Amino acid sequence: MPRILDGKKVAQKLKDQLKVEIENIKLKFNRTPGLAVIQVGNVAASSVYVKAKTKAAKEVGINVIDHHLEESTNQNDLINLINELNNNDDVNGILVQLPLPNHINEEMVLNSIAPDKDADGFHPLNVGKLSISQKNDESLMIPCTPYGCLLLLRELNVDLVGKNAVVIGRSNIVGKPMAQLLLKESCTVTTVHSKTKNIESICKNADILIAAIGKPEFVNKDWVKEGAIIIDVGINRIKINEEKSKLVGDVLFSEVENKVSAISPVPGGVGPMTIACLLRNTTAAFKLKNYN
Amino acid sequence: MPRILDGKKVAQKLKDQLKVEIENIKLKFNRTPGLAVIQVGNVAASSVYVKAKTKAAKEVGINVIDHHLEESTNQNDLINLINELNNNDDVNGILVQLPLPNHINEEMVLNSIAPDKDADGFHPLNVGKLSISQKNDESLMIPCTPYGCLLLLRELNVDLVGKNAVVIGRSNIVGKPMAQLLLKESCTVTTVHSKTKNIESICKNADILIAAIGKPEFVNKDWVKEGAIIIDVGINRIKINEEKSKLVGDVLFSEVENKVSAISPVPGGVGPMTIACLLRNTTAAFKLKNYN
Repeated sequence: MPRILDGKKVAQKLKDQLKVEIENIKLKFNRTPGLAVIQVGNVAASSVYVKAKTKAAKEVGINVIDHHLEESTNQNDLINLINELNNNDDVNGILVQLPLPNHINEEMVLNSIAPDKDADGFHPLNVGKLSISQKNDESLMIPCTPYGCLLLLRELNVDLVGKNAVVIGRSNIVGKPMAQLLLKESCTVTTVHSKTKNIESICKNADILIAAIGKPEFVNKDWVKEGAIIIDVGINRIKINEEKSKLVGDVLFSEVENKVSAISPVPGGVGPMTIACLLRNTTAAFKLKNYN
Repeated sequence: MPRILDGKKVAQKLKDQLKVEIENIKLKFNRTPGLAVIQVGNVAASSVYVKAKTKAAKEVGINVIDHHLEESTNQNDLINLINELNNNDDVNGILVQLPLPNHINEEMVLNSIAPDKDADGFHPLNVGKLSISQKNDESLMIPCTPYGCLLLLRELNVDLVGKNAVVIGRSNIVGKPMAQLLLKESCTVTTVHSKTKNIESICKNADILIAAIGKPEFVNKDWVKEGAIIIDVGINRIKINEEKSKLVGDVLFSEVENKVSAISPVPGGVGPMTIACLLRNTTAAFKLKNYN
């Protein structure tokens, strides 16, 4: 039987640690770390994520400053709001929930967030620091989903050095930072994507396989090596019948689970880790600003 | 017979283009793009590089502002000089020749260069932009050596999409940015390094092999696939006898050349490209500032 990487449990452990840290921060500084959460419009999935993030932040003692803006908000007003938050000492992290409406340039908005408040780790300065630094250490704002994947891997207490890691997907949010993180853990790292030839056979060589494709149950047993470790980043909603739907990952769990040594489920794997890492980044941002 | 990737020739072609561009810039703006070259101390190899870079810059019509500082220069004075150059409108590119003396923190010095004058592309903001952008386009300051390698590859007029590329080495100067560039060309990219297991067999699967290890003639014929394309980034001086030495790459050229479809020699391969790309970055920096 494979080990199931219980993201809920690992995320709770991280949140428990953060709760203690934040209590200590409150005692020492008489201040509460603050996370500004900006949502523009009412995309249903975004509302679900924002609600989950807000709830988790409050749980660990982070103060949430909520800005829910109308779909029609113009880009300048949004950037002006971000500038205000950049200058607000009660705000340590700023999160802009993606996607933004089409009339807004996502890149310009993300780049307007002060790098030291960049709770998602998407600002180019933080992306560059992540690439340059030799270690995955406390000084970095690390994109939340790949960082959550790394923390799940670390839970296994497996030596990552020299492991053959394959990342499926090359997005800025998951694939690229994931490859950077694994390289710093001294894995041999291959990034495969939609243009890759023989993708199946490359994945089949992986000791560690990270699936971030966005296609439901795309990775089946023919893609995985006996005894591999699988992290499933996908969150896809599929219809079961006219009335019912369910969430599945990018990996065909039922087929793959009997072949591997460890696998993260969907839901309950990477998802909860992403949220916990957002809280970690907010706390880290407070510490970097106030302890140095 | 393999195609020998003649870096001198390709670099000359790029320099000829830059020369025309710079003549046009002079006509249009009545100004000359300027490159500040800072050397601290007298490491022999650094002096050779600085001399070659200065000569090439003058050749294409770039104004070189030379700052050769004493070995004992302290870090603050160096950073103050960089700040002056950051604010000097006649300076479009700033190059700090590495390595710096041990008493100076290299990272702090490189980070003090204004990102829009960062001719080497080492500033974290430029590293982040390189990672994030979808294309290897004109808006980026791209580290010179990997960019030179990419231009050599493009000379072959081979479709890079889906090719299996392996980069040996994970330095910030070559390996990491090289992997980013190849990923954006839609190669499948693997980074291998000192901790990689079965490095030989991974390299032997490469359609494109980039060797940036720093070990003389390390890659022999058992590492390369029949018909592969080899780019040799290494520049190693080895002794032939008591009096004589010669430059060799990281690849055992004499053994490998008969097996591959194309290979870059050492010297005369990547080296001249690195210098030409420095001039390209300086010119690009002028254009980004003045054409937008």
